[in-house]
Amino acid sequence: MAQQHLDPPTGPSAGTAPTVPAPLGREGSPTGDALAGYLRAQAAEFLRSLRRHRESGGAAAGTGESGDAARSLRRSARRISGSLHTFRPLLEADWSEAMRPELAWLSGTLAGEHAYAARLERLLGALNRLSGTAALPLQAGSAPAAAPKGNLTVGAAKAGALLDRQLTLARTRAHSAALQALGSSRFHAVADSVAVLASEVPLAPAADGADLRPLATAAQDRLSDAVAALPLVTAGHPYNAEALVHGLAADAVPQPQDAPWHQVRLLLRLHRYAVEVLHRGECPVDGRLLGAGRALDRHRDAAEAASAAAAAARTPRIAPATAYALGVLHADQRHEVEAARFAFQQAWQKEAVPTP
Amino acid sequence: MAQQHLDPPTGPSAGTAPTVPAPLGREGSPTGDALAGYLRAQAAEFLRSLRRHRESGGAAAGTGESGDAARSLRRSARRISGSLHTFRPLLEADWSEAMRPELAWLSGTLAGEHAYAARLERLLGALNRLSGTAALPLQAGSAPAAAPKGNLTVGAAKAGALLDRQLTLARTRAHSAALQALGSSRFHAVADSVAVLASEVPLAPAADGADLRPLATAAQDRLSDAVAALPLVTAGHPYNAEALVHGLAADAVPQPQDAPWHQVRLLLRLHRYAVEVLHRGECPVDGRLLGAGRALDRHRDAAEAASAAAAAARTPRIAPATAYALGVLHADQRHEVEAARFAFQQAWQKEAVPTP
Repeated sequence: MAQQHLDPPTGPSAGTAPTVPAPLGREGSPTGDALAGYLRAQAAEFLRSLRRHRESGGAAAGTGESGDAARSLRRSARRISGSLHTFRPLLEADWSEAMRPELAWLSGTLAGEHAYAARLERLLGALNRLSGTAALPLQAGSAPAAAPKGNLTVGAAKAGALLDRQLTLARTRAHSAALQALGSSRFHAVADSVAVLASEVPLAPAADGADLRPLATAAQDRLSDAVAALPLVTAGHPYNAEALVHGLAADAVPQPQDAPWHQVRLLLRLHRYAVEVLHRGECPVDGRLLGAGRALDRHRDAAEAASAAAAAARTPRIAPATAYALGVLHADQRHEVEAARFAFQQAWQKEAVPTP
Repeated sequence: MAQQHLDPPTGPSAGTAPTVPAPLGREGSPTGDALAGYLRAQAAEFLRSLRRHRESGGAAAGTGESGDAARSLRRSARRISGSLHTFRPLLEADWSEAMRPELAWLSGTLAGEHAYAARLERLLGALNRLSGTAALPLQAGSAPAAAPKGNLTVGAAKAGALLDRQLTLARTRAHSAALQALGSSRFHAVADSVAVLASEVPLAPAADGADLRPLATAAQDRLSDAVAALPLVTAGHPYNAEALVHGLAADAVPQPQDAPWHQVRLLLRLHRYAVEVLHRGECPVDGRLLGAGRALDRHRDAAEAASAAAAAARTPRIAPATAYALGVLHADQRHEVEAARFAFQQAWQKEAVPTP
């Protein structure tokens, strides 16, 4: 059965944009069948992406076919995993609980290479902006000698070269780890489970005719509660200088103040997937949630870039000018974190569009 | 005549809060006499502050009597100098043009000690905030050994100690320079000129019955033109990241982008003094201008603090952790610069209260 997942089922439920309306329950609400349809479609998409990825050589990042396939694979894995979580009571418990950590492992492993590449790009872009060199002397793999003279600019160039070395190494390791993972028996077991899902979703007896909406509403409530606990009043005051508080504290990487925002990012994603399940095939685009989600992605990316700059500054025997540039860069990215919180607050305070 | 300035004239025009209404011209507008009255009052205040300053020991900074007197002395010197500038055509040209640079020299010399003290306080405050240590391990003169463990925190403590050393040295030099200046024959010549001013203002023949308002309006127009040339649309978008552009460029200290804002700060001050001349004794408080002025003071202070952090980072043989902390601090203060521009934009866009 190890090869079965390379041949996804064809038919209406396997399309990239499922257009079959969700089956409706007694009061016209979507039922377990809608969930099954959504999971089948995502599983098929997963298997299709996996085949594309193998055929294109297996890199997990970049703009080519292989990178696209890896992104698409992660996208489906997230949606399957998220739906298993939100609609847990409607699915066979043992199977569902065994599958989620495996999907998380897979997406995590595949995400690394892309994440390091994106982080390096963000940091080099910021260094170029901070050096006032829009015409990019700093790119991945560039030599610091190419930069203009001057103590601080040499610092920026050296900082860029250091980050390039460290993040390229991390990226290469992530690439190897992903390739190794894709060849492992653990991966084949996940792929087999997804292949099962693509043809037959293991619903629990409770799913028969059950209304999906209470579970989707519970996901939305978890999101609302988590947002309510965020310091949004502070975030709504520009230049509140919160994100850099503790920026020089000894235990500041990663910053504990970021955790609730990262959590909201995950809950927002779960909410979005739940809405997708309910509106299968005709999911309305909610600009407010989209804007909020983008702000939280930026929040996460900037927070991780700031940590990478701080980590690079702890490299032994670096020049003071390099360390100085990394300090400026760290603070710059922490202000990006603050800016992202402001953007989230602005997006969120727009009037909510009622979902389900 | 060298001692004359220690005995200011008494009478209505010498009070700290002149209450004599401005003499009115043909159309009820203030004339050269109002200017003379304002200058006499400021000159008297200057002489009174000078006497207080000498009696209290002669420090130019601090919260004590001596610091208050120095601030008050600079305050009067700025007002005299500003009024000489704005109402130049109404004053005896040779005298007025000889006096302004001398007043500027005096205020500049007296301002140094206070400026270095305030800059150090601002930078140590920021380091404490960035270290998450509200309970201040860093104060002027504190030893880095007092700070808690951890690479970055040691960096912050060392950065604080370095700034403390450098700015305290600069402050001490400024103090000596101020004391030396106050004992110099150049200073006695300025004080003598101010003493003349306190009893008899050298008005030009053109001042007789001349309306002050066109000259005050010209000062306001210079302010409006300079504000119109500021990038206020950008400044009004929070987190525009403008202030830190070129933050790592080789030629970035001081930042050329700051100059137009510093210029507006000076023009705003000249405008305010001109309004004081017109409304002598019953000057209305304009909250909008006050807010705008405070934002520009903060802009100047943060810009100079950022420069001081960058300059400290160029000290030879500092530890990388120290340089890193100074980089974070520099970026933090440049964001304060950006925040101050935003605050100015917010204050300025409030509806203008028509003056004269």
